[in-house]
Amino acid sequence: MVIKVAIAGPRGRMGKAAVETLIKDKAFLLVSVLDHKKEEDFLGDNIPIYTSLKELIYQTKPDVLVDLTVPSCVYEHTITAIENGVRPVIGTTGFTDLQLEEIRNKVEEKEVGCIIAPNFSIGAVLMMKFSQMAARYLPNVEIIEMHHDQKVDAPSGTAIKTAQMIHEERNAFEQGHSDEKELIEGARGANVNGMHIHSVRLPGLVAHQQVLLGGEGQLLTLRHDSFDRTSFMSGIVLSIHEVMKQNTLIYGLENLIF
Amino acid sequence: MVIKVAIAGPRGRMGKAAVETLIKDKAFLLVSVLDHKKEEDFLGDNIPIYTSLKELIYQTKPDVLVDLTVPSCVYEHTITAIENGVRPVIGTTGFTDLQLEEIRNKVEEKEVGCIIAPNFSIGAVLMMKFSQMAARYLPNVEIIEMHHDQKVDAPSGTAIKTAQMIHEERNAFEQGHSDEKELIEGARGANVNGMHIHSVRLPGLVAHQQVLLGGEGQLLTLRHDSFDRTSFMSGIVLSIHEVMKQNTLIYGLENLIF
Amino acid sequence: MVIKVAIAGPRGRMGKAAVETLIKDKAFLLVSVLDHKKEEDFLGDNIPIYTSLKELIYQTKPDVLVDLTVPSCVYEHTITAIENGVRPVIGTTGFTDLQLEEIRNKVEEKEVGCIIAPNFSIGAVLMMKFSQMAARYLPNVEIIEMHHDQKVDAPSGTAIKTAQMIHEERNAFEQGHSDEKELIEGARGANVNGMHIHSVRLPGLVAHQQVLLGGEGQLLTLRHDSFDRTSFMSGIVLSIHEVMKQNTLIYGLENLIF
Amino acid sequence: MVIKVAIAGPRGRMGKAAVETLIKDKAFLLVSVLDHKKEEDFLGDNIPIYTSLKELIYQTKPDVLVDLTVPSCVYEHTITAIENGVRPVIGTTGFTDLQLEEIRNKVEEKEVGCIIAPNFSIGAVLMMKFSQMAARYLPNVEIIEMHHDQKVDAPSGTAIKTAQMIHEERNAFEQGHSDEKELIEGARGANVNGMHIHSVRLPGLVAHQQVLLGGEGQLLTLRHDSFDRTSFMSGIVLSIHEVMKQNTLIYGLENLIF
Repeated sequence: MVIKVAIAGPRGRMGKAAVETLIKDKAFLLVSVLDHKKEEDFLGDNIPIYTSLKELIYQTKPDVLVDLTVPSCVYEHTITAIENGVRPVIGTTGFTDLQLEEIRNKVEEKEVGCIIAPNFSIGAVLMMKFSQMAARYLPNVEIIEMHHDQKVDAPSGTAIKTAQMIHEERNAFEQGHSDEKELIEGARGANVNGMHIHSVRLPGLVAHQQVLLGGEGQLLTLRHDSFDRTSFMSGIVLSIHEVMKQNTLIYGLENLIF
Repeated sequence: MVIKVAIAGPRGRMGKAAVETLIKDKAFLLVSVLDHKKEEDFLGDNIPIYTSLKELIYQTKPDVLVDLTVPSCVYEHTITAIENGVRPVIGTTGFTDLQLEEIRNKVEEKEVGCIIAPNFSIGAVLMMKFSQMAARYLPNVEIIEMHHDQKVDAPSGTAIKTAQMIHEERNAFEQGHSDEKELIEGARGANVNGMHIHSVRLPGLVAHQQVLLGGEGQLLTLRHDSFDRTSFMSGIVLSIHEVMKQNTLIYGLENLIF
Repeated sequence: MVIKVAIAGPRGRMGKAAVETLIKDKAFLLVSVLDHKKEEDFLGDNIPIYTSLKELIYQTKPDVLVDLTVPSCVYEHTITAIENGVRPVIGTTGFTDLQLEEIRNKVEEKEVGCIIAPNFSIGAVLMMKFSQMAARYLPNVEIIEMHHDQKVDAPSGTAIKTAQMIHEERNAFEQGHSDEKELIEGARGANVNGMHIHSVRLPGLVAHQQVLLGGEGQLLTLRHDSFDRTSFMSGIVLSIHEVMKQNTLIYGLENLIF
Repeated sequence: MVIKVAIAGPRGRMGKAAVETLIKDKAFLLVSVLDHKKEEDFLGDNIPIYTSLKELIYQTKPDVLVDLTVPSCVYEHTITAIENGVRPVIGTTGFTDLQLEEIRNKVEEKEVGCIIAPNFSIGAVLMMKFSQMAARYLPNVEIIEMHHDQKVDAPSGTAIKTAQMIHEERNAFEQGHSDEKELIEGARGANVNGMHIHSVRLPGLVAHQQVLLGGEGQLLTLRHDSFDRTSFMSGIVLSIHEVMKQNTLIYGLENLIF
């Protein structure tokens, strides 16, 4: 059975890629898009554009709403979709705890699945989850994340999230030699609960992370390379398929996978 | 509570490393070793040497028997240990299906835990298991295994085992371009159920494997480096602790971990 | 002094990227382009389009001609440029030995520099040249090249070229164990003068190569990752600067660099 | 022609490995060793032990003296060897500038080759030298060095030396985004002339370094793994062969290789 999908935010970089992916995939029918303006048919494929989500749902009856818009709109979209029996797949972060609670209540009331994923890259989610699982047996961990040199913040959000997930599995302890000495400040990286994170910034790089877990005589390395934004598409496709089978709120792709 | 351990096969390379590790670890007391000859106290630590397992058990009452001997002895050792309430931790492969069945029966009868692990390297086991789990979401897989150039067989046993484990999770399909052409024979490696395995042999290398899983715009790499045989020790230590809590037969470290 | 440049073949993928790069770089002035048709000003920057190279040279007087057209035109362009005192930077391969000989003669006659580079990626050229240099001291070599799974031929041209360059520095010898045995055909890869080449093909990959040189107790790895075609631009920019200082024919970026 | 070699400092870890290597190599004859005490024949191969270098030279007439002793003795050994026409191959660092000057004078006077190499690992020397050469074309550099967690100092001497060598080839400039911000202190590593060095410390690791050079759309990685101390042997063997052909002082293996 073909799944009928609507996309909110089809003009952004993620949105454009999602439109392209869904149009090519026979498992889906892209029935409509939600945009903030109703311009000329920029999709070039006779796909109707709406500026009101309610009207979109009423007219084109999607099974799933993929929402790639900005945080300020996404909460309202989510509630509206659930109330009307449309299953949301949400890629934006930034919900408050209260909002998440209300979405959860609404999902339970309507028994309509909903997936919220701060990171749609399946490979990145696997890397993080495997790191957490492995740290129970190989608790000495260092993280090297590598990005293009136009990135301002260090470490990356994914690296910090990974360290936090590992921290849930192992006790904090200071790694390295107890008399360790930095001849040049910063050499040993950022210290997060005793783990060290190193941020590499170079032109040419895209988004890469490796988690190194050392044990006596051995090293386990879990590495994810994201070469372009199409890496997020497989997570969206998986989520659309899965949200059709769910009737609860699932937060984080890892809870879909494991 | 300190666990009392006996080691069978203390003279081999694995055995020597095991003796050394257990003597240093306060959680254990090495009470005796089983050897094929009763030479001078080569252990240099007043640890008694036996040539009969029954006598060893009777005299030194170990909780656990770590057996690192050759396949020809190990079955009998295992049965004898279980019958006498000693929990075996076995690192040798090569049991027949019938032998495994009889060990299982004996374990159930006596309600005494037993762990048999063809590979005691925790990192390698994690790499294999994670590869299997990841292949469900990223089914395009290639394996590169790298060993010193004195290794005769290619691919390695670990690489073949990894491919088999992945094959259980994904349907066989031919990867790569449908018109793929080898300009030089062998370039695309060994084909196992559509997956490709590449065997690198160089002086200097020890034992390394990486599993590459590619998806649109991304790559997940799971790599294990074994730098020396001490890499097996952490798996033996874990198994001794775990076998004390078990009363069934556990075959393969992955079934202890996951 | 600003260098005046003309580009032949501005509509192809390489050509477009070159136009973009040169317009942004203050060291250059893009004075004109040579195209097979004189369409509307697709460059959107008032840069004149010519369909005749002679007219282009006569009217816009470039110092350098960057030629990114197809092999069938490029020889004639090169000769015409040199005859008129314009220095060619050529990225197309496929000259015959006779053509190269005639270009060399023309260059010497006119004392006008000319650079022909089959590969404009500086990183790839460095990787190849370093591999050749290192193989003198670490003669055991394996090559792993990795590309997207839409590539038909294996091994890649770069991998074969690398093996040939290394072969010039070391005697052919069979690497690996003398009794080496492939349990599955192809495991040890393609054999080129005793070196082994392994071709990995996965979705998500772009163009990557690593050269591994093993010695007793050590491994030297030279790796190049090409993430997108802009990787060729730095080689073109370097060549434009260098061709202004030369008055001979230089074939291959490595002869500019070393 | 077989080269007659004496080793000073045969009891240390490097010394033992050197004795073993030279005994096995048909190109060499180990004629004697210099030790601080004349104990029982610990070499087990009828190789005479001396405590005086002059007597050693007089009695066993070596062509080459490989000196692996401590800095306090090595200067005197070097001068004595040269004065007696024996060619020194020196692996200890720590000469003063004045001492180096006097060794150079003595070498010129006697026209006897002498090689002093702070690092005998050919692979490490190649990595450093290639990094320096490549930085001219790809000036954005980050260094990741990885060692076992019993190492006290960070960064490693090799990493600092590499950065210094690169600094000779490129102007200092601050890499990364001009508004770069460390969310956690140390994330961006140690800053050496604008280059960033990251020090990873994990159990299991031996001695590894990678130099990453990024350019638009590409990455060049030069990596050296030292798995055990035999990695130094190939450099010593090369030096013994080369010192026989030289009649000057050569400081640093890179000056032998390039």
